Amino acid sequence: MPINKSMNYTGIVKIKYFTFASKNNPFKLECGKTLNQVTLAYEIYGNAKNIDKTILIQHALSGDAHAGGRYSPEDKKPGWWDAMIGPGKTFDTDKYYIICINVIGGCQGSTGPGSINPDTGKPYGSSFPLLTIRDMVNAQVELINHLGVDKILTVVGGSMGGMLTLRWAADYPDRVISAIPIATASKHSAMPIAFYEVGRQAIITDPNWNGGNYYEKETPAMGLAIARMIAHITYLSDESMHNKFARRLQDSSKNYQFSFETEFQIESYLHYQGTAFVSRFDANSYLIITKAMDYFDLSYGYKNLAETFSEVKSKFLVVSFSSDWHYPPKESKEIVTALRMNDVDVTYSEINSSHGHDAFLIEFKKLGSLLSGFLNNLEKEISDV
Amino acid sequence: MPINKSMNYTGIVKIKYFTFASKNNPFKLECGKTLNQVTLAYEIYGNAKNIDKTILIQHALSGDAHAGGRYSPEDKKPGWWDAMIGPGKTFDTDKYYIICINVIGGCQGSTGPGSINPDTGKPYGSSFPLLTIRDMVNAQVELINHLGVDKILTVVGGSMGGMLTLRWAADYPDRVISAIPIATASKHSAMPIAFYEVGRQAIITDPNWNGGNYYEKETPAMGLAIARMIAHITYLSDESMHNKFARRLQDSSKNYQFSFETEFQIESYLHYQGTAFVSRFDANSYLIITKAMDYFDLSYGYKNLAETFSEVKSKFLVVSFSSDWHYPPKESKEIVTALRMNDVDVTYSEINSSHGHDAFLIEFKKLGSLLSGFLNNLEKEISDV
Repeated sequence: MPINKSMNYTGIVKIKYFTFASKNNPFKLECGKTLNQVTLAYEIYGNAKNIDKTILIQHALSGDAHAGGRYSPEDKKPGWWDAMIGPGKTFDTDKYYIICINVIGGCQGSTGPGSINPDTGKPYGSSFPLLTIRDMVNAQVELINHLGVDKILTVVGGSMGGMLTLRWAADYPDRVISAIPIATASKHSAMPIAFYEVGRQAIITDPNWNGGNYYEKETPAMGLAIARMIAHITYLSDESMHNKFARRLQDSSKNYQFSFETEFQIESYLHYQGTAFVSRFDANSYLIITKAMDYFDLSYGYKNLAETFSEVKSKFLVVSFSSDWHYPPKESKEIVTALRMNDVDVTYSEINSSHGHDAFLIEFKKLGSLLSGFLNNLEKEISDV
Repeated sequence: MPINKSMNYTGIVKIKYFTFASKNNPFKLECGKTLNQVTLAYEIYGNAKNIDKTILIQHALSGDAHAGGRYSPEDKKPGWWDAMIGPGKTFDTDKYYIICINVIGGCQGSTGPGSINPDTGKPYGSSFPLLTIRDMVNAQVELINHLGVDKILTVVGGSMGGMLTLRWAADYPDRVISAIPIATASKHSAMPIAFYEVGRQAIITDPNWNGGNYYEKETPAMGLAIARMIAHITYLSDESMHNKFARRLQDSSKNYQFSFETEFQIESYLHYQGTAFVSRFDANSYLIITKAMDYFDLSYGYKNLAETFSEVKSKFLVVSFSSDWHYPPKESKEIVTALRMNDVDVTYSEINSSHGHDAFLIEFKKLGSLLSGFLNNLEKEISDV
């Protein structure tokens, strides 16, 4: 009888919750403040018996814990990296124990500004403390410990997920066997800070923002939509926008309409992106998370980036995309250079793609085979030891 | 006695106004609507006796007719291209008769949405018709005729000024001896449409916009500031932002402040740009002019760009800047190729600069010597004929 490779994984997943910290043992943040209660929303794919083969998947700014699978057989939309997760896929649920956790500060189940503050019984709103990528990682450590995982085989993620990956490898060198930061940077340069700051200003100046306290009122939907539209443009590339939209009109049978209504296809696409985002994301979480990304500078407090990596023991695969101008390939190369200065075993791959920054959510074939190769080699090396 | 080369030009300039059109003889627009009265604000530098050596300078989106000189000896800020205009400068006031005109739709003296509609006695506001770059050029033709200028020696401008320059050369081939489009494109690609559309959405969703009718009330200042901040980022380059700001904090003696207040220097710079713009620009003009730029497609109505240029008789100098990603050099090269297909005499120069799109307002030394060379050659050729 042939072995059913997929017997452990049905593809139907359930979101789980883990709560920690208390008034007597609060969770400490880099800003100096504390949280008396922290809940993390997370999902697990694959077989918990493979706990020595744990893969920790990190999501990006607008992502969540739902990386793979579906919530029910009727669920039309699988997790955001479902093409990578499952039996026989890159993150093979037959081989690995795969975890994805919603970051703190988020709005998809983990404690964030929209959560109820247990001390007041009301949403945190403006009283929610500002976070760092390190705070997000430190919260994940609590869950990883709770799950009984000691060493993580691979921490992997794109964009902000890459920042979380880098922070894990730098701060917990004994617990990360390998790290795959994708389409990311070791720090926010002036340009992403600039774009995210304009987005934050759009939210903060929306009259409905109300200083961050809007949970029982109208939300700052317009501000959040504008912030999302700005950011979304930076995730595309000139070439992908040209291929997808160029100057095409919504109604190609008509000439210019000479009105401020939606006329070009690119306008309609952006409006849709803005509106869709508002229905699933909280404006305060957007403020908190983009600010954490702006604060992110892996070398902050060190002499330079190479010194930051001085304790690193992980094997690295660093991946960038040729047309990514949000975190351009040169920023990945800086990471590679700093790792090599520490004799870290690092492979660098720049994937040729016209999809800009968003390529890590699109180029599954190229990315999948690259990561599969890395994971297979890793397995051989470990079993050789 | 040595000739005082500068005797004709004191450097003190005065804004002038020219009004045309009437109810019986209205100014027709591409959208099909008309304006019963059109005023153009303009300035003249140099000697009106040199009318056969007319240079028409075209301003960009946020520019105005005040290209050179000062309004009084105490005036601290000269015109936006003053480094290029004056005795012995590239646009030599001793040699040339130099004109700069505020575009219609603008808010610096020419008829725009903030002007009084003579038919109602109230500002146009939302009733102001949408314009095209061709409409702006056609209005300029009225003034050029009024000034008695037949052929223009050189039409020159950067960014939107380059679009106006291209339109002049394509639509009035017998009247343009030479054309210098700088840092521009023959059409808006999807990316600038996207960025300008988000800016327009920021204005339109500002509650103070009030459908465009706000002239006797509070203005949509926040929306306009956000629109300006978005656009301003696209005028810079990754390198120039890194050189100028990198991750430097406003108060370098402090650590991160963990607040949404202005913290990084780039944030403070953007806020300043937004606020300064609001004090000098009208939100409705921003809507009208960005939309005219989005509509701009020189080949619209033709088979292709080469056909658009089939009647062109002007000699061309096309200039781009290496780090300009708003209108990248490849878009200038498309113009050059289309011109060459028509055997037009065209010189192309890509100036090496880290200043992004804004380079045309910064790289005066490189730009000045390039344009001076072109103008001197032009003069020789004309006198040789």
